[in-house]
Amino acid sequence: MSVCPAIKSLKPYQGGKPVSELYRELELEHIVKLASNENPLGIGPRVQKAMQQAITEINRYPDGNSFELKQAIGERLNVDTSCITLGNGSNDILELVARAYVCHFDDEVVFSEYAFVVYPLVTQALGAKAVVTKSKNFGHDLDVMLAAISDKTKLVFIANPNNPTGTLLSNEAIFQFLKQVLKSVVVVLDQAYFEYLDVEDRAIEWLKEFDNLIITRTFSKAYALAGLRVGYSVSSAKIADYLNRIRQPFNVNHIAQIAAISALADDSFLTRSILANKNGLIQLSKGLDELQLSYIKSFANFIALKVDNATDTYQKLLTKGFIVRSVEMENYLRVSVGTLKENNDFLEALKSVL
Amino acid sequence: MSVCPAIKSLKPYQGGKPVSELYRELELEHIVKLASNENPLGIGPRVQKAMQQAITEINRYPDGNSFELKQAIGERLNVDTSCITLGNGSNDILELVARAYVCHFDDEVVFSEYAFVVYPLVTQALGAKAVVTKSKNFGHDLDVMLAAISDKTKLVFIANPNNPTGTLLSNEAIFQFLKQVLKSVVVVLDQAYFEYLDVEDRAIEWLKEFDNLIITRTFSKAYALAGLRVGYSVSSAKIADYLNRIRQPFNVNHIAQIAAISALADDSFLTRSILANKNGLIQLSKGLDELQLSYIKSFANFIALKVDNATDTYQKLLTKGFIVRSVEMENYLRVSVGTLKENNDFLEALKSVL
Repeated sequence: MSVCPAIKSLKPYQGGKPVSELYRELELEHIVKLASNENPLGIGPRVQKAMQQAITEINRYPDGNSFELKQAIGERLNVDTSCITLGNGSNDILELVARAYVCHFDDEVVFSEYAFVVYPLVTQALGAKAVVTKSKNFGHDLDVMLAAISDKTKLVFIANPNNPTGTLLSNEAIFQFLKQVLKSVVVVLDQAYFEYLDVEDRAIEWLKEFDNLIITRTFSKAYALAGLRVGYSVSSAKIADYLNRIRQPFNVNHIAQIAAISALADDSFLTRSILANKNGLIQLSKGLDELQLSYIKSFANFIALKVDNATDTYQKLLTKGFIVRSVEMENYLRVSVGTLKENNDFLEALKSVL
Repeated sequence: MSVCPAIKSLKPYQGGKPVSELYRELELEHIVKLASNENPLGIGPRVQKAMQQAITEINRYPDGNSFELKQAIGERLNVDTSCITLGNGSNDILELVARAYVCHFDDEVVFSEYAFVVYPLVTQALGAKAVVTKSKNFGHDLDVMLAAISDKTKLVFIANPNNPTGTLLSNEAIFQFLKQVLKSVVVVLDQAYFEYLDVEDRAIEWLKEFDNLIITRTFSKAYALAGLRVGYSVSSAKIADYLNRIRQPFNVNHIAQIAAISALADDSFLTRSILANKNGLIQLSKGLDELQLSYIKSFANFIALKVDNATDTYQKLLTKGFIVRSVEMENYLRVSVGTLKENNDFLEALKSVL
């Protein structure tokens, strides 16, 4: 039997070690994980209670249409539920979009360097051509991206705020981009970190004007449900129909649906998460300033910072019990915003290993 | 923008209504769902406890390698963890296999009529050709399937026990099939209902002989975790490597991993589930005999039974609060084994609507 060529040329999967293994290996009593841009506050009491109640129901299949969760999202965003697609994390949605619109081996997918790692992965898995554009000040250069679009381009990914850089494009810049991009190209605006922004959200209203736009969001960050896997997209009803045809019938599990509904209703936890993140960004930035380290101003829940030798600093931090993220930017490390104490401890540890 | 042709020709997704909606519509106080072959016993106390403890951890991403769950499955089956692929339900695995080995539009996938509905779906979504073979006594006709395999065949699906018929192929029959099938063809042996069988399991040892064999199993049935979505395959390490390259990094959520580990360790709940199912099958069979209805002898946790007018009987049962499953076999309905009381009530209701 022969595996499809695109898959044969993919790298074997290399997941990180589970934290439990690191405890064993490093013989540490306490590990602080600042590697995955998770919500450091844990989960809110309302979500906890909702999950408790759902536990005894998990011998039953999930609702394959996520009826109630779609209703809750639709009401929140003032969009029709026919425009919503739910995914096993927004990762699932990114893959569904690529599988729906990238059909041929010479199809092209455009995205920026220093963007979310999943964009090249889904492109490669389909055997399509990744057109990677140069960044501008570590963020997306939309002019360069526009110029990179050809008649072979099927899909463009834009992460805003961007990961792993934390950079932000203005509403105006994205709006101008959408106006200029070919209508035959699907544009995914990946807003995984959107809730942390202070600026007004315009993306949803753009959907009225641009039927090639797909907005993706997640419950993994500000809503603190990374472990449950639930994300969604909002798009034209037509696109949502296609994405729903190819998603797995039970792609979002029962507990995730229940928890997400409850999380959406808990404004107090969301506000607390956003505020804690804002303070954490200030705290980390100030600390990095004091250490005279350069870093990229971040609009998300992490900071990319520069050190002399990222591999070395990463390892030294690890032996002190701090997991940060190695990224594909020379001598940069990405650190997630933790709690007040975690940020403080991290800065102390960083100081000691520089 | 244009969606890929294979997707355009798929039917729009039509999920069932959630049970909560049915309560509203039918104005019923109690609904018995015997439609999805779920475990009627609920979940075991050990799994409940493990899930309780995991609730506060779901702000963190799942372990992307499912390290501990793979270890538990590996020990249970005496296979190396490098041979295991985990999925968001075994549905995920079925799709991964098709995406890995079905590459061209003229590639063929062979499966039997009256088999699991996901086989045609994943084939159609890839734009490949489904070669559907005639069944024999509602089960797979392996001789006909062998004859249907051509040099264009990339994949064969065999469900054993089969769904929605409940029929069983003998170990010897499958072994002979594997010996004769072209080595270039991937054979998926879908054992979702395997735990309910009395016969000895040989499939795992066949892996030593046939490196084109993939065995899929699930935690949704006897292990009662349908709502959490966790299934797996065992195959050669080479196949598992390819499947792991294209799965989503966090396809199995954290609670699902924790619950599955705990479910695997709870032999007492599993034994109770299997025994309850055995008694339920006897109870339903006897009841159907008394009603002089014909049905297919089942080796799974459901029975396909014949009525004069399936649509009519389905609707009448629904208004009485019993949800069964319409299947693509003329005038057959599939009913899942429920608890002793549910089975009894169902037989009473069925009697009253005939």
